[in-house]
Amino acid sequence: MTTTTEPGPTAATAAGIEAVAEVARRLLPADGVISDHARLRTYECDGLAHYRVTPALVVMPEDTAQLAAVVRACAEHRVPYVARGSGTGLSGGALPHAEGVLVVTSRMRSITQMRPEDQRAVVDPGVINLDVTRAATPHGYYYAPDPSSQQICSIGGNVAENSGGAHCLKYGFTTNHVVGADFVTSDGDVVALGGDAPDTPGYDLLGAVVGSEGTLGVVTSTTVRLTRLPEEVRTILVGFATTDQAGAATSAIISAGIVPAAIEMMDALAIEAAEAATHCGYPEGAGAVLVIELDGASGEVEAEYAEVERFCAENGAFEQRLATDPTDRALIWKGRKSAFAAVGRISPDYIVQDGVIPRTALPEVLTAIAELSASSGVRVANVFHAGDGNLHPLVLFDDAVEGAGEAAEEVSGAILDLCIQHGGSITGEHGVGMDKAKYMPRMYTDEDLDTMQMVRCAFDPQNISNPGKVFPTPRLCGEVPGRHKGAHPLQDAGVAEVF
Amino acid sequence: MTTTTEPGPTAATAAGIEAVAEVARRLLPADGVISDHARLRTYECDGLAHYRVTPALVVMPEDTAQLAAVVRACAEHRVPYVARGSGTGLSGGALPHAEGVLVVTSRMRSITQMRPEDQRAVVDPGVINLDVTRAATPHGYYYAPDPSSQQICSIGGNVAENSGGAHCLKYGFTTNHVVGADFVTSDGDVVALGGDAPDTPGYDLLGAVVGSEGTLGVVTSTTVRLTRLPEEVRTILVGFATTDQAGAATSAIISAGIVPAAIEMMDALAIEAAEAATHCGYPEGAGAVLVIELDGASGEVEAEYAEVERFCAENGAFEQRLATDPTDRALIWKGRKSAFAAVGRISPDYIVQDGVIPRTALPEVLTAIAELSASSGVRVANVFHAGDGNLHPLVLFDDAVEGAGEAAEEVSGAILDLCIQHGGSITGEHGVGMDKAKYMPRMYTDEDLDTMQMVRCAFDPQNISNPGKVFPTPRLCGEVPGRHKGAHPLQDAGVAEVF
Repeated sequence: MTTTTEPGPTAATAAGIEAVAEVARRLLPADGVISDHARLRTYECDGLAHYRVTPALVVMPEDTAQLAAVVRACAEHRVPYVARGSGTGLSGGALPHAEGVLVVTSRMRSITQMRPEDQRAVVDPGVINLDVTRAATPHGYYYAPDPSSQQICSIGGNVAENSGGAHCLKYGFTTNHVVGADFVTSDGDVVALGGDAPDTPGYDLLGAVVGSEGTLGVVTSTTVRLTRLPEEVRTILVGFATTDQAGAATSAIISAGIVPAAIEMMDALAIEAAEAATHCGYPEGAGAVLVIELDGASGEVEAEYAEVERFCAENGAFEQRLATDPTDRALIWKGRKSAFAAVGRISPDYIVQDGVIPRTALPEVLTAIAELSASSGVRVANVFHAGDGNLHPLVLFDDAVEGAGEAAEEVSGAILDLCIQHGGSITGEHGVGMDKAKYMPRMYTDEDLDTMQMVRCAFDPQNISNPGKVFPTPRLCGEVPGRHKGAHPLQDAGVAEVF
Repeated sequence: MTTTTEPGPTAATAAGIEAVAEVARRLLPADGVISDHARLRTYECDGLAHYRVTPALVVMPEDTAQLAAVVRACAEHRVPYVARGSGTGLSGGALPHAEGVLVVTSRMRSITQMRPEDQRAVVDPGVINLDVTRAATPHGYYYAPDPSSQQICSIGGNVAENSGGAHCLKYGFTTNHVVGADFVTSDGDVVALGGDAPDTPGYDLLGAVVGSEGTLGVVTSTTVRLTRLPEEVRTILVGFATTDQAGAATSAIISAGIVPAAIEMMDALAIEAAEAATHCGYPEGAGAVLVIELDGASGEVEAEYAEVERFCAENGAFEQRLATDPTDRALIWKGRKSAFAAVGRISPDYIVQDGVIPRTALPEVLTAIAELSASSGVRVANVFHAGDGNLHPLVLFDDAVEGAGEAAEEVSGAILDLCIQHGGSITGEHGVGMDKAKYMPRMYTDEDLDTMQMVRCAFDPQNISNPGKVFPTPRLCGEVPGRHKGAHPLQDAGVAEVF
């Protein structure tokens, strides 16, 4: 299953890397530049551990100027670079390049401005997601996007992947909470994107950069929107006999115009794993649970709660438990948020899949996944953001068993096909990265992908900013624009393996 | 004041335009292609009437295929084209090109899908903004972005300009309500941007295209998000002695965490004009009024209303009037929404300015505008979205008086400088267009503008899609990417007057 690329740079490129290392050694503290092979190995993967590549050099800049200088040196010597935050990504977006530099932002960890009066904070790229909320809470605010990894993942990584989380149903993704950023171009220039004004003139390049997975450049200092802490929060754990019932309850709630802060669903296998790992007190024998959270003004939450309770009961809920205090609430969430890791208790290996379907297709797709599982003998646990149809099937296998990894990969890919067939998407929030580049042509036409690659070429004509990610086939950016040949310049450009 | 460009195309370019006309005549109904000079003249300006340019050709396609074919012909013959919806824009974004084709979308007016069950509608670019709401209302939904021109402006124009409106304080701009679009590239290809999934993989090019003012290509069929009609709406008209008091009340409301659907402010001169034109019953002798609208669940609206009333009273409100019924509510809004036109009652000519400041800078900036007005003798009426600091000063003058237009232009420009000095922006919602391109360097560095132009070159290497708008200085897109010279490719490229 594991793809490991060895060894490091060829002699031809070693000179360029050494030149970048020299620049880094001149500007950064000695321990901020790593070129020792054994230590480089510790950076060989991100959260998607089945791809492993040892980078040729690791640098840990302390500020935007140092980071930009390293990128400038990379550009001058045509050395690829990959930015990495906490390395928790699940699509291999921060997988190093064997002949390139890994730029680690873990030393850029200051919250430089906390401005609750206008609901903004300015943070360095290495700042941990949850630390923004911790800093804002005393002022009555928090940072809304909450990936499951929020205790460890970085804002820079969140921006690169446009990370979501359980509460994105109501509050939107990272892109809805980032209003400005300092951006290091592939030449090492620093430009300002976005800003405080509600609609900045010119192009919304910030929107294009958020979620571009480091392929357009590197975002450093980021201005984020803070969200006011709600007056009241109610968290409800609801048990159903089947996922169909839980899905129907979800549809009833959303169709009534209620937008809960979160509606999470877990199936029997996921419940079993979570219970074993966290003793979260999920209802025994449930075929599915929903974790529903309502937040807002007290009166509103109370009114919504009454409706939600009724919709759940009408759709067959056999147990509904309202969290009695913050500890109880935290325990309910612990079961859900540690579900991925908990699956390790019931299976030696597993793939975390990430796909999206229209919410109304939920019952049909879950049935199809169950059939896939039955016919292949591969177990699948389902954990997902039910409110917006973002599935996270966990495909279980044992790598020690011959062929098991391949069988799991096959089921995992077939689940994405199901998502596409139902009008959904190959990723909801984990990104394309290395892992899903091959699936992009199933979702997009050649013209769609060409349009994206045009933009990539504009930002990064040398293809050095996180190359090999997102796009299945890199393209040469050498076509001279301004010459019209009856088709788009990129359609004329030869397809080439750039590395 | 009025800048008129005459005559039409030179002989050298006439052949290209004739070739485009031939393609259009072959594909479109006879009355969909206009080349008669007198009739072309009727398209010489948009809502910013002091720039006038007669286009060389007008085409009115009936569907995306026809529109794409016309653009393809333009690309082949290197003929500039400008897309135009209803022509209500206030920054000259749809000003024609004297040697180019004006592509008018007024025959593309179908709402092709109305899907309240998943809160989406799919509409043609020529569909009138308010017609989307009219079609959605029977299903319990509406389309939230509401420019003052919503009875006549088109969705295509809204998308091009990322239009706002009074209710954008709570609901966001057009970009927050467009989830997918068919996009005609500058080569005449049709690509799909965005989609129904909450976070589509790859770059968010839809975000970059919304608000790009037609310089990247033309959006045709658009998928918009529908918003559920609120359970209750309360509209309150509040009279103050001064704009300072009204500003303080606004700050108190927002700081308390209340997000009204709208908070609009008008000063004495604007009130006088609106009252004369619409008899809207605004409080007599007021130095400022606020129109505050609360919407949402009944209990929530009631609780917020009590607080808003208190904040207004505490900050000196001498009259507060709650709309008693829909007719009364409409009358209050009529005063505000017709304010621009109403100013015509008290001044033969006026400039509608559009700028943004941080809300907290409101009192200071209004004082500075009053000083500008006093020292120059140019009257300024202020109408604005107070909640998000989006100012619309109306600079009054009489074009019959020698030098009055120039004096007004000077005051109008000085107001934008005030906005920038206070950390704001040169446009809140009217766009850059032709009118404000010259101000872009006051807001952005050369590197910032180069980054935007890179993207422009990627989408439109021939510079034929609405050329001359947004950017103060067009740049050649001829630099071969992939060759690094120590600075960004665009910084090496020669600056050239393209037309």
